[in-house]
Amino acid sequence: MPAPPSRPASPPDARGPAPDARPAAGAAAWPGAGPDASPDLAPLFRPRSVALVGATERSMWSVNTFANLRHHSPDIAVHCVNPRRDRVHGVRSAPSLAAIGEPVDLAYIMSPRDTVPRVLREAAGCGAGAAIVLTAGFGETPDGRAAQRELVEVAAETGIRVLGPNGNGFVDVAGGVVPFGLRLPPLPAPGRASFVLQSGGLMKPLLCLARSWGVGVGLLANTGNEAVLSCTDVARYLVERAETGAVGLFLEAFRDPAAFRALAHRAVELDRPLVVLPVGRSEAARSAAMSHTGALTGDSAVTSAVLRGLGVVEVTSLEELLATTDLLARGLRPGGGRLAVVSASGGSCELLADQAAEQGLTLPPLPPAAVRGLTAILPEFAHVANPLDVTGYATVDPALPARAAEVVGRAGAGRFDLMLFQAFVSPPGSPSAADRAHFAGLAGTLHALPMPAVLQDEVAVGLGDFARELFAELDLVRLPGIEVGLRAVAGAVRYTARRRRLVTGPGAEAAAGTGSRTEAGADPPAGRAPLPPGPWSEAVALGLLARGGVPVVPHRLAGGVAAAVAAAREIGGRVVLKICSPDIAHKSDIGGVVLGVQGDVAVADAYAALMSAAAARAPAARIDGVLVTAFRPGGLELIAGVRRDRVWGPVLVLGFGGVLVEVLADVAIRPLPVGTPEVLEMLGELRGAALLRGARGAPDADAGAIAEAVRALAGTALSWGDGWESVEVNPLRVDGTVVEALDALLAAAPGGSPKISGRAR
Amino acid sequence: MPAPPSRPASPPDARGPAPDARPAAGAAAWPGAGPDASPDLAPLFRPRSVALVGATERSMWSVNTFANLRHHSPDIAVHCVNPRRDRVHGVRSAPSLAAIGEPVDLAYIMSPRDTVPRVLREAAGCGAGAAIVLTAGFGETPDGRAAQRELVEVAAETGIRVLGPNGNGFVDVAGGVVPFGLRLPPLPAPGRASFVLQSGGLMKPLLCLARSWGVGVGLLANTGNEAVLSCTDVARYLVERAETGAVGLFLEAFRDPAAFRALAHRAVELDRPLVVLPVGRSEAARSAAMSHTGALTGDSAVTSAVLRGLGVVEVTSLEELLATTDLLARGLRPGGGRLAVVSASGGSCELLADQAAEQGLTLPPLPPAAVRGLTAILPEFAHVANPLDVTGYATVDPALPARAAEVVGRAGAGRFDLMLFQAFVSPPGSPSAADRAHFAGLAGTLHALPMPAVLQDEVAVGLGDFARELFAELDLVRLPGIEVGLRAVAGAVRYTARRRRLVTGPGAEAAAGTGSRTEAGADPPAGRAPLPPGPWSEAVALGLLARGGVPVVPHRLAGGVAAAVAAAREIGGRVVLKICSPDIAHKSDIGGVVLGVQGDVAVADAYAALMSAAAARAPAARIDGVLVTAFRPGGLELIAGVRRDRVWGPVLVLGFGGVLVEVLADVAIRPLPVGTPEVLEMLGELRGAALLRGARGAPDADAGAIAEAVRALAGTALSWGDGWESVEVNPLRVDGTVVEALDALLAAAPGGSPKISGRAR
Repeated sequence: MPAPPSRPASPPDARGPAPDARPAAGAAAWPGAGPDASPDLAPLFRPRSVALVGATERSMWSVNTFANLRHHSPDIAVHCVNPRRDRVHGVRSAPSLAAIGEPVDLAYIMSPRDTVPRVLREAAGCGAGAAIVLTAGFGETPDGRAAQRELVEVAAETGIRVLGPNGNGFVDVAGGVVPFGLRLPPLPAPGRASFVLQSGGLMKPLLCLARSWGVGVGLLANTGNEAVLSCTDVARYLVERAETGAVGLFLEAFRDPAAFRALAHRAVELDRPLVVLPVGRSEAARSAAMSHTGALTGDSAVTSAVLRGLGVVEVTSLEELLATTDLLARGLRPGGGRLAVVSASGGSCELLADQAAEQGLTLPPLPPAAVRGLTAILPEFAHVANPLDVTGYATVDPALPARAAEVVGRAGAGRFDLMLFQAFVSPPGSPSAADRAHFAGLAGTLHALPMPAVLQDEVAVGLGDFARELFAELDLVRLPGIEVGLRAVAGAVRYTARRRRLVTGPGAEAAAGTGSRTEAGADPPAGRAPLPPGPWSEAVALGLLARGGVPVVPHRLAGGVAAAVAAAREIGGRVVLKICSPDIAHKSDIGGVVLGVQGDVAVADAYAALMSAAAARAPAARIDGVLVTAFRPGGLELIAGVRRDRVWGPVLVLGFGGVLVEVLADVAIRPLPVGTPEVLEMLGELRGAALLRGARGAPDADAGAIAEAVRALAGTALSWGDGWESVEVNPLRVDGTVVEALDALLAAAPGGSPKISGRAR
Repeated sequence: MPAPPSRPASPPDARGPAPDARPAAGAAAWPGAGPDASPDLAPLFRPRSVALVGATERSMWSVNTFANLRHHSPDIAVHCVNPRRDRVHGVRSAPSLAAIGEPVDLAYIMSPRDTVPRVLREAAGCGAGAAIVLTAGFGETPDGRAAQRELVEVAAETGIRVLGPNGNGFVDVAGGVVPFGLRLPPLPAPGRASFVLQSGGLMKPLLCLARSWGVGVGLLANTGNEAVLSCTDVARYLVERAETGAVGLFLEAFRDPAAFRALAHRAVELDRPLVVLPVGRSEAARSAAMSHTGALTGDSAVTSAVLRGLGVVEVTSLEELLATTDLLARGLRPGGGRLAVVSASGGSCELLADQAAEQGLTLPPLPPAAVRGLTAILPEFAHVANPLDVTGYATVDPALPARAAEVVGRAGAGRFDLMLFQAFVSPPGSPSAADRAHFAGLAGTLHALPMPAVLQDEVAVGLGDFARELFAELDLVRLPGIEVGLRAVAGAVRYTARRRRLVTGPGAEAAAGTGSRTEAGADPPAGRAPLPPGPWSEAVALGLLARGGVPVVPHRLAGGVAAAVAAAREIGGRVVLKICSPDIAHKSDIGGVVLGVQGDVAVADAYAALMSAAAARAPAARIDGVLVTAFRPGGLELIAGVRRDRVWGPVLVLGFGGVLVEVLADVAIRPLPVGTPEVLEMLGELRGAALLRGARGAPDADAGAIAEAVRALAGTALSWGDGWESVEVNPLRVDGTVVEALDALLAAAPGGSPKISGRAR
């Protein structure tokens, strides 16, 4: 490869074409768009001709793109544009797009950054409906932002669909369209799993792994800077296509949460699931947070909650992304997580059982008919159970595992949702006709079972050519290794259950967080009650919540000793005194709380003590007075808060409070708005949910009353509109049927009105 | 393959040889044993001749074993023994071992179960030092247990080393010795990572994955039923060999914990680490537990704690087992978890950062010299940071990442413990001389850095032949995928840190849990204080603990109202009354606790209430009376307990108590005995450790006082010898420097004296 200059800002030595242009042909009536395809993107993804603008042998991108198109897209006309050469890559080179003299559907632009807007205009003028901009140095770098804005403007003016800039293009394996700037590995077989990646560098590894694992692939696209077309747009195009089985996404950011919600809604509707690998969890972990709920959740927890609610499967590795998308793309929809396992290795059975438990999958016992049938065919020393190890005797009788699978499958209809047939499926050495017959027989057996069945390889090794082709031919699905394989199965189970609920369950639309609902927080509901100017003290926060219908502990703000004594008398019994200031978030830290005070003298003493503590330890704080509240010992303490996620807007966070909040990340999260049923669901999700059921003789907590209070909190927060960042009740005390906010903290948005935008996590 | 009979109990059609025998040659002075090898097992692992007893073309095991030896072990003489045939597998077949007429070092026995003891005796008589018994139907099945006992007796009598029964043998890739009963895939290259598996079915998958990932392998053995030689014995042999870099173990059971501890100790001493994949976690999760500590820990948590203490790396998948053993076998010993990452993909940088955070690895910022150096060589649009994305410009300038690595490495000496060079390292298509030169240059750069450096592949795909051979030649280590790769790195970091501490730190021997220390619980320490006969009420348990030096809340057992009133007066202030019975473990559940009582009348009322509650809700329970203790509101509640693990003996469990124990699995575990420093370490491990540091104005907990109380609890429990199963203090209340047991539960061993044996987890 040639030694390039050391500090390029964009692909070198590629000048844009001359600015002459043909009249625009218009792309609205694009003929390549089928009824199922989003007509918008057909010019991009189904071009009949491609022009490489800035084509040159001196750029590896140009070399690669030309070679890829020639090799994989024989039916597409490929033109080169370079004003300074007659021939490039062994073909005639035109000085400009217009000079090609033939229609160009797609311009693949590698010319220097400053030429890109002109080339785009010219392309649109020539009738090209789409462009891929490989050139880098746009929005991803400070001095390229203006160039990116110009690019966006040209796209808006001309209507040309732009993928990129700073993207490598796409690889449509199934369709044979490969305008892609990197050297490609041998491609996987065509299939129904498509992928959209916000990272171009992962295209090749994913293609290579897909081939190795025998995953059939539809289209892979890299969206680059997403100046015009986002990953959501591309995924939407894919979801609308009948050829698509499922779409895997590698996401660095959710740039348009509303569009993503709509995409997810459509994916569920069409049953073409989305599988998402979001990155940036660790960044979120580092970000400081103002309140407990902020510290506990982080953005990635919110994203996970949102994705779950939308019926999107979240994964954490590229391997899991590939395996899960593959399973779903091939139509696997397990009705539940009850696995039947047939294996010829005790060790891998145990490993699988551990991993299944980890993933929330179960291994129900075999039904009596299966036990009888298996006892008749297995060696005496076999242990008849689920997971089933037919023993190493499978070495002598290779058909034994399939016979066992048949027995288990027939007897297990309705008891198992999925059968895993454990087999080390990369046949070693040269496969024989017997191997072929063996797998053909196995496929026949598995396909005839009354539940779906897949092969489960013990390790995530690649398939040999023989197995890859044979399994494709026999329509055998193979899970790559126990860990990744079972994670993929668990993902398919979660999706299937969630979709059922979203599509058919009561409140399906509400649970999906889509439909008629407005983008929470962007458009406050009716009954809006604007906030007084902040910052807000606890007394103000409690008052605002009480007005919104949240049950709040009896409280009085006292501006002096006498008022405090009177407030305590009025409230009655033992009371709590707390320093009240908009500037002090954590009162205990400065000795600003006195608990369980009774009697005038004690109240007066406590008042004085609080005032001195504040004077000594928070001298700059504005003191509104002392808040006197009823003292409520015991009971169960929850924490409930609403905070604004940078991407998803206001979310509700609910968990156990008091001492638990210090050590647990045991919270449930939902984007707002929520109804009472969803709050009940959140309570059930908490690890400590058992605490609600009156442990050790305490009364049962009234979940309905809790849900009502929390729903009121969420509704009140939404009614405030903008200007606040988070509101937190800690503790929300529960004593049987009595639910009360004992403390509240309302925090202002930094710099006023928060925006719903920016990086995801 | 021939259709076999349908219900065999052992490999069919293989009769044992005639019982004539040569005089024993004795194996003590085995000449093949080098100074580093365990002389005991050299006859097994370094035979010069092997006899297949029960050889027949009708058994695939026989066919495979013969073919494997012929193909991979050309220097080993292979004999067949079959009394009913003259020729088997194309060679002369002897009617018996003795009739072979040449020395036999290793007998590979496939003959029917009932012939095995006789064949073993004959083999020993002929001078064979070792045998592999492939035949199944021994201890793994109820009616084979007697046969296994007989096999063990013969081995003890004759001194013959037996691997199996019910095992496939071993594959010594590096030594070229392959007495193995299954068809082998193409083998990986020889290397320093060896493996011992308690599952024969995983041998082939692991070999195949090793080859695919370019992992060099020493010896893989399957230990079958371990009637004579255990995985620990085989691993010990491997650990003693200079050829071994690290040993990976797949373990279904720890059959001899003392031997395993000794093995681990030796592995640390010789710096030939053990990596263990233990299975059975899910079974442990299902097992019922009598007390909170039992429920929270499960056996697998104990095993994890023990392994950690011994410097053994625990892993959870076969992929991680292979990658981690490989890294360690190749000598990688990162001094810490500080990673420098050089990549050409922003997406994989983010993925790697997330995964690093998950694994407790860090990505410190680049030092200023690296920032300066990188700014000079990277494109303007590159973001100079750690992890570093040199941008897609690496397509144009393939040497750019290596130059960047050199800059980062040179400037980062002392700041980074390991460099990950992210590269998609499976070159697609046909590799060129340029590819070879590229990697050679890269290897030169990485080897010259002042810290270890490895290649980090984006996905866990197999290497092509080219890359596999080239990387071996260039001594380049490659991590297979981000998730598995970083887990392997984290394992190497943990091992390195733990070994440093075990070998050089203060109290190294104590922390290793080995050395002069007795097997905890098996041999009670001096000062043994036998328990009174159980069951024991709370009052008895508190008394026993107090006698052992555990600080216990003031308490009196009252047999009547008057005594209760007197006890309350004596203790003073507010008191707690609890029903006291050896038969009621959870008093609150029957209303058997009244808190905060003061005054004679209140005490008398409480006494009466408790008695009626017991009569109504636990009529069959023996009631010893009412326990009156001082009332201790507030404070921090810990739970501390000792329970017997089925494998590892008594273990200490320490965590946060009270309400936290209901929802948290936040406990630290150590095998006993422990010293005060170890208890302090346990406190530090708790997720809620921050609670000890006086949250919200509460006084700091006195960690030293806690540790002293917990150590006293552990010592007291050990002093009791046998007869008890668990003892639990919940809560152990901490209020600044005051530490007190408020409640204690002592449970009897089921059926008397517990044994240290059985399945691991």
